Parts: sequence; structure tokens; C-alpha cells
Amino acid sequence: MFFHRQELQHHATPDKPDAVFARKLQEVLGGQYGEITVAMQYGFQSWNAHLPGKYRDLLYGIGAEEFGHVEMLATMISQLLADAPVGAVEGAVQDDPTVAAIIGGTDPQQGIVAGAGARPVDSNGNPWSAGYVTASGNLLADFTANANAEMQGRLQVARLYHMTDDHGVKDLLAFLLARDTMHQNQWIAAARQLREEGVEDLPVPSTFPLGKEDRDVAYQYINFSDGEHASEGAWASGPTPDGKGEFTYVAEPPAGVPMPPPTQPDPRFHGTTPKPSAMEKATGAVKDALGKG
Amino acid sequence: MFFHRQELQHHATPDKPDAVFARKLQEVLGGQYGEITVAMQYGFQSWNAHLPGKYRDLLYGIGAEEFGHVEMLATMISQLLADAPVGAVEGAVQDDPTVAAIIGGTDPQQGIVAGAGARPVDSNGNPWSAGYVTASGNLLADFTANANAEMQGRLQVARLYHMTDDHGVKDLLAFLLARDTMHQNQWIAAARQLREEGVEDLPVPSTFPLGKEDRDVAYQYINFSDGEHASEGAWASGPTPDGKGEFTYVAEPPAGVPMPPPTQPDPRFHGTTPKPSAMEKATGAVKDALGKG
Amino acid sequence: MFFHRQELQHHATPDKPDAVFARKLQEVLGGQYGEITVAMQYGFQSWNAHLPGKYRDLLYGIGAEEFGHVEMLATMISQLLADAPVGAVEGAVQDDPTVAAIIGGTDPQQGIVAGAGARPVDSNGNPWSAGYVTASGNLLADFTANANAEMQGRLQVARLYHMTDDHGVKDLLAFLLARDTMHQNQWIAAARQLREEGVEDLPVPSTFPLGKEDRDVAYQYINFSDGEHASEGAWASGPTPDGKGEFTYVAEPPAGVPMPPPTQPDPRFHGTTPKPSAMEKATGAVKDALGKG
Amino acid sequence: MFFHRQELQHHATPDKPDAVFARKLQEVLGGQYGEITVAMQYGFQSWNAHLPGKYRDLLYGIGAEEFGHVEMLATMISQLLADAPVGAVEGAVQDDPTVAAIIGGTDPQQGIVAGAGARPVDSNGNPWSAGYVTASGNLLADFTANANAEMQGRLQVARLYHMTDDHGVKDLLAFLLARDTMHQNQWIAAARQLREEGVEDLPVPSTFPLGKEDRDVAYQYINFSDGEHASEGAWASGPTPDGKGEFTYVAEPPAGVPMPPPTQPDPRFHGTTPKPSAMEKATGAVKDALGKG
Amino acid sequence: MFFHRQELQHHATPDKPDAVFARKLQEVLGGQYGEITVAMQYGFQSWNAHLPGKYRDLLYGIGAEEFGHVEMLATMISQLLADAPVGAVEGAVQDDPTVAAIIGGTDPQQGIVAGAGARPVDSNGNPWSAGYVTASGNLLADFTANANAEMQGRLQVARLYHMTDDHGVKDLLAFLLARDTMHQNQWIAAARQLREEGVEDLPVPSTFPLGKEDRDVAYQYINFSDGEHASEGAWASGPTPDGKGEFTYVAEPPAGVPMPPPTQPDPRFHGTTPKPSAMEKATGAVKDALGKG
Amino acid sequence: MFFHRQELQHHATPDKPDAVFARKLQEVLGGQYGEITVAMQYGFQSWNAHLPGKYRDLLYGIGAEEFGHVEMLATMISQLLADAPVGAVEGAVQDDPTVAAIIGGTDPQQGIVAGAGARPVDSNGNPWSAGYVTASGNLLADFTANANAEMQGRLQVARLYHMTDDHGVKDLLAFLLARDTMHQNQWIAAARQLREEGVEDLPVPSTFPLGKEDRDVAYQYINFSDGEHASEGAWASGPTPDGKGEFTYVAEPPAGVPMPPPTQPDPRFHGTTPKPSAMEKATGAVKDALGKG
Repeated sequence: MFFHRQELQHHATPDKPDAVFARKLQEVLGGQYGEITVAMQYGFQSWNAHLPGKYRDLLYGIGAEEFGHVEMLATMISQLLADAPVGAVEGAVQDDPTVAAIIGGTDPQQGIVAGAGARPVDSNGNPWSAGYVTASGNLLADFTANANAEMQGRLQVARLYHMTDDHGVKDLLAFLLARDTMHQNQWIAAARQLREEGVEDLPVPSTFPLGKEDRDVAYQYINFSDGEHASEGAWASGPTPDGKGEFTYVAEPPAGVPMPPPTQPDPRFHGTTPKPSAMEKATGAVKDALGKG
Repeated sequence: MFFHRQELQHHATPDKPDAVFARKLQEVLGGQYGEITVAMQYGFQSWNAHLPGKYRDLLYGIGAEEFGHVEMLATMISQLLADAPVGAVEGAVQDDPTVAAIIGGTDPQQGIVAGAGARPVDSNGNPWSAGYVTASGNLLADFTANANAEMQGRLQVARLYHMTDDHGVKDLLAFLLARDTMHQNQWIAAARQLREEGVEDLPVPSTFPLGKEDRDVAYQYINFSDGEHASEGAWASGPTPDGKGEFTYVAEPPAGVPMPPPTQPDPRFHGTTPKPSAMEKATGAVKDALGKG
Repeated sequence: MFFHRQELQHHATPDKPDAVFARKLQEVLGGQYGEITVAMQYGFQSWNAHLPGKYRDLLYGIGAEEFGHVEMLATMISQLLADAPVGAVEGAVQDDPTVAAIIGGTDPQQGIVAGAGARPVDSNGNPWSAGYVTASGNLLADFTANANAEMQGRLQVARLYHMTDDHGVKDLLAFLLARDTMHQNQWIAAARQLREEGVEDLPVPSTFPLGKEDRDVAYQYINFSDGEHASEGAWASGPTPDGKGEFTYVAEPPAGVPMPPPTQPDPRFHGTTPKPSAMEKATGAVKDALGKG
Repeated sequence: MFFHRQELQHHATPDKPDAVFARKLQEVLGGQYGEITVAMQYGFQSWNAHLPGKYRDLLYGIGAEEFGHVEMLATMISQLLADAPVGAVEGAVQDDPTVAAIIGGTDPQQGIVAGAGARPVDSNGNPWSAGYVTASGNLLADFTANANAEMQGRLQVARLYHMTDDHGVKDLLAFLLARDTMHQNQWIAAARQLREEGVEDLPVPSTFPLGKEDRDVAYQYINFSDGEHASEGAWASGPTPDGKGEFTYVAEPPAGVPMPPPTQPDPRFHGTTPKPSAMEKATGAVKDALGKG
Repeated sequence: MFFHRQELQHHATPDKPDAVFARKLQEVLGGQYGEITVAMQYGFQSWNAHLPGKYRDLLYGIGAEEFGHVEMLATMISQLLADAPVGAVEGAVQDDPTVAAIIGGTDPQQGIVAGAGARPVDSNGNPWSAGYVTASGNLLADFTANANAEMQGRLQVARLYHMTDDHGVKDLLAFLLARDTMHQNQWIAAARQLREEGVEDLPVPSTFPLGKEDRDVAYQYINFSDGEHASEGAWASGPTPDGKGEFTYVAEPPAGVPMPPPTQPDPRFHGTTPKPSAMEKATGAVKDALGKG
Repeated sequence: MFFHRQELQHHATPDKPDAVFARKLQEVLGGQYGEITVAMQYGFQSWNAHLPGKYRDLLYGIGAEEFGHVEMLATMISQLLADAPVGAVEGAVQDDPTVAAIIGGTDPQQGIVAGAGARPVDSNGNPWSAGYVTASGNLLADFTANANAEMQGRLQVARLYHMTDDHGVKDLLAFLLARDTMHQNQWIAAARQLREEGVEDLPVPSTFPLGKEDRDVAYQYINFSDGEHASEGAWASGPTPDGKGEFTYVAEPPAGVPMPPPTQPDPRFHGTTPKPSAMEKATGAVKDALGKG
């Protein structure tokens, strides 16, 4: 169950309206790595968790905070829009080019659709999509997804920090930056602890028997480009992070296998198929090449 | 520039057709963490990279391999569909309930749209979306995204492995599992090396001056749920992974700040606004509470 | 701010697993009118509200309940999936046609992507989209949107009620049906009160001066089809619900106005445009018809 | 069957081009509540209608008008774009800041993709999606959806009215405002008549037996936020609009029920699950709490 | 303006219900190449047309027919769903495996959302998207798009024809097949006539001065794969269809140009950038290679 | 298998940065007809091809080139963004209106999300969608789709050519225009050859027996609008392009057939249905009209 309290975790009041920044700020509210994403992601991870105890409590405890961040950003955006210009560009520009330039940089839907309000969209107006959410039921994979989400999120807030001079906005962003610092650290720590406690291990999923994968190529860096410097990386030699192998470097991909002959679906699919004789020949050739003929 | 060779990196031929599995396999071709995602993601990361040398070569080298994996899976799916049933369910079920059940589990668009062919969609038929791609220009964030992508990808392949008895299919999946093992290890190793070489550090982005974030809350676990076990985790006490602080546990969120008064946009937005007198009262009350009145 | 408590508002435990119903139940979790929609919708309406007091408190008070409903449904779905079949259809069907039929009706992503868990998608696997949300800042419009959402939602739950025999599931649905009954009644009552208190009125937005709209056609039913029975409706004669006019019935649309001449954009757009002489003639003809030549 | 006549229902010619407004006007053509939405919505409602007679004739009669509104808006937008600037911003701005500001506010796809033409998208360029359409087969629910659509639509047109000084544009908007006034009134009247005639009733769907829902909570306002003013509303006491109950106000949500124990899916889903002993303990505790142990 | 008549262009009544086929038939109603696509496509092409006369009349004349096809298919789908099973799979399968298999193959949203009605979606339930529509303002390009749309559409109807035994359904499909035959022929004839009359020519857009494109590579087939047979095609030698050149075959792509040095954005974007010294070296090397240093 | 070489097919370096054009150029990278579309389209067509030899080699050979074009455009966009402004609009505009105007016209996600980098989106920021891809397995249909894609693509590049003065950009566009000239010609030539060789024919699919379609209406132009000029076109009389008929012109659509009676689904779908007596009457009337009663 969720409960709401009519307070904000931190001040969210700009010094003055700024309709252009109100559009940009939508990114960290409703974008791929905005607050809606992490709120929903931690929620679904908790509801799909199979392990009671500290890891699930962590997901519950952070998820609710993130819904509050959605609220803080929406509140801030509404205020940034408070005096959004309503009028026409062409008239405006004759009086004041600043206003004209602002109109060019605003999100028209914040005005037309929301009446100068925040929307569940990103800075280009794409509606938030649940296609951004990751919740697999495997905690090591998901905590890595979460660490990434907090990294991308903090990076975007840091970029936004330099796109405004408003002290009220910067004050909120400074708070969000710090919480993202915490959350990055937290998911990395949680992922490590999963491994230290033997709950999960690399490679994910560690419960799949390694003997069933094709171990010959499990630690090879195979270079499909012509850059030579990848051989210098920590991924080209030395022990692997999963502690189960040694990296090797394969400068050129080995020869592949011939493609199987093209399929011949039921004629009622009306695909373009060869005349029987042509096909026989082609199939024969491929089979020969495959040594299966 | 990209070049194509008419070979596959590994065999991709099933023992026999299986139209139901052909649908499921779409997930790792065109789903959120399918091969199209990683191919495009490594591509955009390389094109947006600012650092020449081994890290960019790594992105180039792996990206092209992943486009080849797209091809392998599409080839496999086409063959699994080779004898997809065309007829009506109700007729079929009287003769053969197996066929009827199969039809229920197939992707109708593989037949109607692609003529028994693979499609750039996931196992529910959602078209692949570039909204899945992450390429921020910050390599530590992006390599973490990549590690996650390979974890989620291997997890899905491992799940699919148990949903078929076909040796040809399992042989391909065993190959993909091994490559995902490599790629998980590789991105983790690369992320570590970025930190060891001092190119990047935690928290991401490490180039944002920490003094500008709200350091008081940068290492606090604040518990917004009523579970008590999160206090036992490695994220609740001890040194933080970024090496710059100590985790603390805050059992109950501190009191928040009052919400700012609701906005009063231009009346030409036709929002529902209070009568002037009511509004003055409300604003006054909030300002008093904020101590700003 | 939002707070989470590790309880559910109502029991959400099925008598036994049912992977097919787990797919169907996704509709009221992540569909157009599922719980995510109403939770987010009431949230954005509250954050964009300009009127403090009972209406905004109502939005806050209900929004948090709906996030709890998201949790209840996700919890139920996870349990319905607890014993989801993993194996292949064709093998299964030989042993047990029931299992085969079930596999055909399941959502493959609940297994492959979520590991037998709930997902933020609808019953066809479409990811939830913020394009479903309505939050305009005008409360009379938005409460009408909310009444509709609760009607559509209760209708879908009522349909699902007959698609299962599971007492645990039916018990949860009975609870949700009742809450939707409340919420329908509540939004209708709130919309009425807005009008009774003179805060808003019909037509929405009531603050737009009626004198500026084309009053001649403001209460005409114009029949663009050849059915004759629409003339019998309450919308074809009598006073209008906004109390400002009388309905009239126009059996056949009056003659329209000529279309304006086709546009002739800059040739650098490379559209298909007429030779100058042809165009002059065409434009002339249209202008004559318009009486503007 | 649909027939087209090469006339418009109303004049749709601007006084002069305005590429910035051409972008904004897309909202009421191809947005969530634009003319495409209502045209398609009334269409699908009529095709899914089960009740012949006046209600279905109403849907047919209005649907075709709305397709004509799509055409009027597209025609207007094309003309607003007739002299859309083609050149580069930076060059332009040195000569004329107005042109530069205009370019900033235009939809680039109207030029690049449509050659200075209208597109089936909203004012942020999101393609129209059938996810906006509501057609449930239940007329009381759907007429409420329609009333909402016409309210949101008229609200957006009213906002656009103040964003232009062009008399030709305002003339068309004045016509659309009036038709939306009619359509709001009409759907409200139709919804009322459904109830008065006993065809449908509240709560929707009225054919679901009330005895099967959880009547104890069917008229409770349960306050999940800490605002106190919701108790003052018409939804907190007094008779309910469905005429079947009395509202009550529950200031604080009653205690919930314990969450069910986390699920333990088949290990071949490779979720993160507890060690057997830990799990037994956890399950036991929950079962005790549930009183089912 | 559009007018509706309560008739269908052709019979659209199945012999008996078939809920599985009702799902499949959605493809040609609401899929990428379904009737909604062509109706909207011809509409937008006509509204964006710059050339009055026969070509625009053609677009108007066909567009309205296609809206009628939307209606015919929706009507057919509703009837196919008339007796859609409501009950649970597991109960059903014990009585009747046919019913269970059917449920597996149905679209759950046709029942839960539309109450056994048609929906504006494809056979996998993806909502129709205006991203499918093409309307560029260039008639030669757009008529080619239309020819393709009618080819893909007829192909899908032909595939569906073999997926049913129902005479009523087949009768409607036979009608649609014939209309698609007409429309394919018509768009090809119209595209030819555009060229014969000198209104448009190849390559599209023919109004762009050829001298400004890079004529050296304007007729080269450059082979980026290792197949040798492309050299045998009509695109590898002989005159080109635009009548302005001769095809040549380039067996191996010529050497490319070095990549430009990676970009170094403003540090406030926090991308991963080299240390200054490393960068100078890298840039120098690339400049040397480019011969621009 | 795909291989990458660290070269570009053509120079892709602008003379100077231009963040506004960087946004516009996204259209031909990630739009409906951008390079990602053709690269993926030719890829899926080759993987779904059933005919070995020159046609499939053609698809392979071009597909890889297009992936290289994706890379060239991404490289160009990154450089155009190299000095993208970071600061606030309002501050900037006081110093320099050019900068303010530029900010208004930029894509905020190129900065906030990609750190001044290219993204897999169009010029309005819509993520690329696999819903743009066509790959049916029928080569005549698909080559027509390809011809259209290259026409639309070249048209967009031609429009962009006039939106910049930058010589470096124009040089790349001149190269792309020429390659699109080639590809248009090539697909037209390939489509012709399919027919000349008797592999495919019109109407698509030519393998569907014509006798099963409704030949009476297979070559009729039926005019659903009131324009008279369509009768003058090559599609209104004379032989049809498929060589199998003669066009005829039907000035007015013939009378249709009565609509079937509305459906009466299971009452548990809770649709709005007539009272039994009303329904009997209605059904009877329709049946009479249909002559089936």
C-alpha cells in the first residue's frame, strides 16, 4: 500500500519562470531514465522478487522515494511554466525577440494540453513508455540495470545543471544529484553483496550450468572491426571477472559456416520461390558445402 | 563501413520446424534486450565516443558481431517457421489437437505479414524501438548499461533453452550463452579499467564537482517503506563503493517541506483556478508555513 | 511524498496458478484503463491543480490508493504464474493437451522476460504508455475523464470476472469492482459539485467567452449519415444540458464552401506542382467560386 | 460506406502563413484529443454497437462530420505552411531575427517529410496512435468517454484561440468551438437518456450483479493522503449518484492484509530465490500472520 | 466533407463465428498495410496535394472507398466474435479441447476491452500508428508508396484466404482481393502517366538539379557482400530506368576515407574525453592521414 | 556475418558546427525513411528470401552499405553538435539573439541524453520503430517498397540540401543523393526483371488464382468523391498494367448491401444490447431486407 503526504522531500521552487527549461526538465521526469522509470522499475522488481528480506526491503524502500521525486519534478515544472507566454510568435518578436526565442524552445503540449503544467513525457514530448522498465526476477541483473539507470539519470541532471542560472532550480538539482550518488553506490554495493553472500554470481544467470554453454568461445574477444587497440584492454587477456576463465584475443573472426539453404514455405504464403529445378540445384550445393548432403 | 559475408558465425539450423518456438525466439532478436538492441547500442556508442583507442575499438569490434547475431537468429526463426500451419484452427483441431494448440501459440504476423519469416519484433509482436538504446557519451555509464544488457540477454536465452527440445536450436543457444558470458565479463572488465586508469570514476559523471551536490544526503539510505531488513545491507553502513563516504541508515524519512502554493497560469489557459479571495488565503498560509511570507 | 507499507489493501492470492488468466489480468494492470493509468492520471492532475482544497485533496487521496492497486494486481499475477509451464508445446501436447492449450494462451514475455512475473503491459503485451493519461488543468474536463476511466475499468473487471472460476481471483475482483463503483460515483459527484459551486460550468471551458464561438451552429445536430432515428434523441430537440440553448436537428448538412486552391510551396520542397498556366486557371476558377476573385 | 464531397464544412483559409502556428494546430488534428481520435472513436463505437436505432444513428451521423474536420484542419495547416522558410537558421538570423525565431518553433517534419504539408501527428510530432481510441460496446461508458473527448478538445481549441491573431484561423476555431459545444451537450444528453430509458444505469456496467461485488467498500471514500479537505466534498457524505447508497468518509485506510509470501517459480527461470531453509522460515512467518499456517 | 450511408459495399457476414480468425483479420484492418493505413494515406496525400485535377480527384475518390473498407472489416470481425468463448481455459479444455485451443489463439482485448468487437489494432494487438502513413507532396514518390501498399495488402489478404474455410469470409476476401488488384494497377498506371505527361520523372525528385549530386556514383552497384550473383542482374549493366545513365558493377567497395577525429564537446556534457596530450596525438594522426594537417 | 572497417564511404565533416541542422539531419538517419530503415529492411528481406541467387545477393550487397550510411550520418551529426550551446536561453538572448534562436531549434535530447551526440530518432525525436520495416517474402512487393523508400529518402535529402549553406554538409548530401539515385533505379530495374523472367507478375501475389477473386470489380475505378477529373486518367480506361484487363470508370458507386444486424454478444460482456422484443423487430427487418428471412 502507498500513502501520500502533502509535503515535498526538498524545496522545489524556482526563482522565476522559465518555460524553455520547463521543457528540458521533462527529460528527467518522463524520459528513458527519468524518475517515472526508476519508480516503476523498483516497484515491479519488488513485486516480482522471490527472495524476502533485505534486498526486497531495499526495493520497496527506494521505490516509494522515487514516486516522490516524480512529484517534486512535476511541481517544479508547473512553476517554471507559471508565466508561459500565450501569444503568437510573430507579433511577439517585433516587440521582444527574447519572447519569440522562448516560444521556439518550449513544449507546445505543456501549454495546449496541460494548461501550463507538467506532463508524463520526455523533453521531446515522447510519452513515457513501460518499455523502459527492467524487472527480470534475477536480482544481480536487475541491480546492474538499476546502477546504470542511476548513472544515466545523474549524468542527465548534471547536464541540466549547466543549462540554467536559476538558484531555486539548481538547489533542487543539487539534491537530486546527491540522491543519485547514493543510489549509484547503493546498487553497486547491493550487487556486490549478492555475490559475496553466494546468492548470485557471474555470469548471470549463475544457476545455468556452464557445461551446457559453448565454453570454447566463452572468453574470446573476437574482433569484427579493424581497430587494433582493443587487444590492449583488460578484456583481451588476464583473468575474467567471473573468476572462471582467462580472456583471449582473436584478431580476426574464424571462418563461419555456410548459410543454410533458403526456406521454401507453403506456396499459399505466396513468397517468391525458385522453380523446382533451380531450387534443387541450390539446395544440393549448400548441402554439399555443409557436408550433410 | 560495414561488409557482409554470406556465412554465419555458428550453425543455425533446427532439427525440425516449431512455429511456437519461432515466436518465443523473437524475444532475443527484437525485444528490449535482443540482438538488435545491442547491435544498435554499441554502434551509437562508438559513433558518439570522444575517446579514441582501445575503448572505441572495443565498441566497433563487438557491434559488428552483434549484427551477425541478428542475422543468425533471423535465419533460425525462418527455418523454424518453414512448415508453419496455414489452415484454420477449428478444422485442424478435429483432426489433430496438436496443430490446433500450435496455432494458438504462434505469432500470426510471422505468417500473414512475413510469409513465414522472422520480424524485427519481440515475442509479443511489439516492433523494436530505438527507445531501448543507451548511448550517453559517458563510457562508465554506458559500459554499465552494456553489462546489464548482456546479463538480461543471457538470462532470456537461458530461459528459452528450457523451452525447447530441439538439438539444433539448443546448439545455437549454447553458442549465444557463451558469447553473452564473454560480453558480460568484457564490459565489467572495461568498466573497471576505466576507473583504474583514472579515465572515469564513481559517481558518474565524476567530472561534476561534488561540492555542488547536496552532500548531506549523498550517502543516506532513507527508508520509505516499513520493512526493517534494509538496514542489514551493505548499503546501510560502511564505506561507499565510490570511496568518498560512509553509508548511513535513516529509518524514517525526515519531515519534508510544505508544497509550494498551486500555480495560477494565465486565464487564457482556462484551468480551474480559485476565486481571488480563496487564493490569497491559501497562498498566505503556505507562505507562512514556508517562513517566507 | 509517498510512503510504502508492506501490506495489501485486500487479499490477492489465487486458489491455484493459471498462466492464461495471468495474461488476461495484465489488461487491468497495464492497459489503457488499467491501474497504472488511473494512478498516474490522478497524480498528474493533482500536481497540475491550481485550486487548493477539497478537489485537490481528493486527487491526492485517491491517487495513492491506485498505486496500491497496481501492487495488488502485480502480486496476484505473479502468483498465477507460479507454476507456469516451461517446456515445449509439442512435447507437452502429446502428454497433456491441456498444457499445450495453456501455453498457447500465455504471454511469453511473462516467462522469458520477467521470469514468471507481472509486467507493466496490457493483455496483448503492449507496454503501458503515458499517452493514456489525461491531465489538462481543467477539473470539470478531467473529472469527466476520470469518470470514464473508472467506467471502462469496472467494465473490464466485470468481463474478467466471468473468465475465471478461481475463488481467490474472484474475491480480489469483487473488491476492485466495488472500489470502481465508489470511484465512478465519486467523480460524478465531484463534477456536479464543481458546477453547483460555480467553479466550473458547461460547456468546458466555461471561461471562454461564448460570444466568440460560432453560436449559429452551437446546438445543431447535423446528420452526416442517412439514419433517421437520431432525430428522436434528446440531443435533437429540447433544452441543452449547459442550460444555454435549444437543440435543433438538421437532417442534411448544408452546402459547404469550396475548397481553397491547393498550396504552392517553395519549389525547393520538390512537391508536385502544376505548370504555371494550369495553376493560374485552377486558382482563378476557385477564386471565382469563392466570390473573392 | 463513406462518400466524399470536395467542399469544406466551413472556411479554412488563414489571412497569412504562420509556420509556428501550423505546428501548434497539429495538436487538435493528430493529438490524443484531436479530430482523428473522435472520428475513429465514433466509427469504432458504431461498428461495435449492439443496439440499433437512435444511439447508433447518432454515432454514424457524428463520425462522418469528424472526418470532415480532419480535412478542414489539414487544409488549414497546409496553407499556414505555404511560405514556410526553407533556409538555414544561422544565415537567416543575421538578416532577420523573426525568421530565425520562427524556424526554432516549427515542426521540421512538416517541411522535410511532408513538403510543407499537414501530418497525422500532434504538436510535438508524435504520430497519432489508435491507443487513444475508446470503444467498449457499453454505450454509457463510451458516451462518457465522448463527453470527455469533446471537453478536452474544446479546451485545447480555446487555448489555441489565444495563440494567434490571424482572423482566418480564428474564424475556423470559432466554428470548431461551437461544434464542440454541441458535441459536449449531445453526449451528456445521450448519456442521460440511456439512463432515463432504462437502457443503462450506474454503476457501469449496470448488468453486473451488485451482490457479487464487495459492497462494504462500494461507497467509502478512503483517504490515502493527509489532506483533510476531501471530507468536505459531495463524495464524502450524502446519497451516491447511482442512487444505490450513501457516501462515507474513512479518514485513514484500515489495516491491510499481510503480503503473500514471494513466489518460487521453476528454477529454470533463473530468478533469485532463497536457500530452502531461509524460504521455509519466511513462508512460515507469513502463513502464521495470515492465520492459514 | 464526408458522408456516411448505412450500407456496405459488399456482403460481410460469416457463415459462423470464429474468434481465432477474428484476431487474424485485424491485420488487414489495423496493421501496417491495413485499410486504416490506406484510407488515411490517401486522405493526407489529397490534402497535401499541390496539383488540382485528375490526380487529386483520384486520391479523393479512392480514399473514401477505403474508409468504407475499414467499416466492412470491422463489421465482419464483430460477427466473427459473436459467440466468442467467455470462460476459463482450464475448465473448458476438460470438456472440449477445441474451445481451449481457440482461446489460446484469440485476441484477449477483443473480449476484455471491446466486448467482442473489432479494434483499431493489428493481429498482434499493436495499436494502429500514423507512423505507417506516407504523404510527401511528391506524387511520383507517393503513388509508388501506394502501389506498394496495395501489393502488401493484397498479399496479406491472399494469405488470410487460406486460413479459413468460411464461405462468407472468403466471399468478402475475394471482393477485397479484386479491389486490391484494381488499386495496384491504378497506382502503377498513375505513376506512369505522371512521367508520360512530364509532370514528374525519375529519379525522384526530378526537380533537384542532377548536376548537384555526386554523379560519379549515381549508377554504380557497389557490392558490400561477398555474393557474386548480383553482377548478373539488370541493375549491374545496361541503361538505367531513369534514362540518364548506364549501370556499372563495382565488385568491391573502393577504399573509404579516414574517420574524422572524435568530437570533444563542452566538458559540461560530462562525456568521456581524452587527457589533452592523448587527444592532440590522436587528432594529429588523423589529420595527417586526411592530408589536411 | 558483418565486418566493420574504421573508414567512411565518403567525407562527413562539416565546415562548422550547426546544432539546428544536426536536429534536422536526424530525419534521414532515424526517421520513417532514414538509413536505419533501409538497412534493416534490406537485412530482413535477405534473411526472409526464399530464392537464392542474384536477387538475394543484391539485398545482401546493399544492406551492408546502408549500415555504413547510418554511421556516416551519425558521425556528421556528432560534429555538427560539437559546439552546441549549453547555457540558458534567457541569459543568452540578451547577449546574442542568434544563440537564443539556435537553442529554440535544437533537439534537447541530443544534449541532455547523448552529450552532444547523434541518436536513433527522427527530427522530432521519435525513436526509430521497426514498424517502418517491410519484408514480406514476396520480392515484387518488397522491391516496390524499396523503390518507394529510396524515393522518399532522396526527396528528404533534397529538401535538407536547401536548409544549409555548409559546404561539408552539402558534399555529403550530394553523395547520398547520388546513391539514392542509384538505388531508385536499381529497385525499379530489379522489379522489372522479376516480371521479365517470369519469377513474379502483377497483380501481386501473382500465384493467387485470379479465378478466386471477384473479377467483376477487379478493374473498375469507382468514384467515391464528386470530382469528375479522375475519369480522364490512365486508370479509367485502356489496358491495365498487369495485362489482364481493361480499366472502366464507374462515376457513382452502385448501391451497397444492407448492413447485417448488430451483434448480440454473450451478456457477460456487458455491452449495451436491446431488450429482446426490440431486437427481434430489428433483426427481422434487416433479414427481410436481405431477403434471407
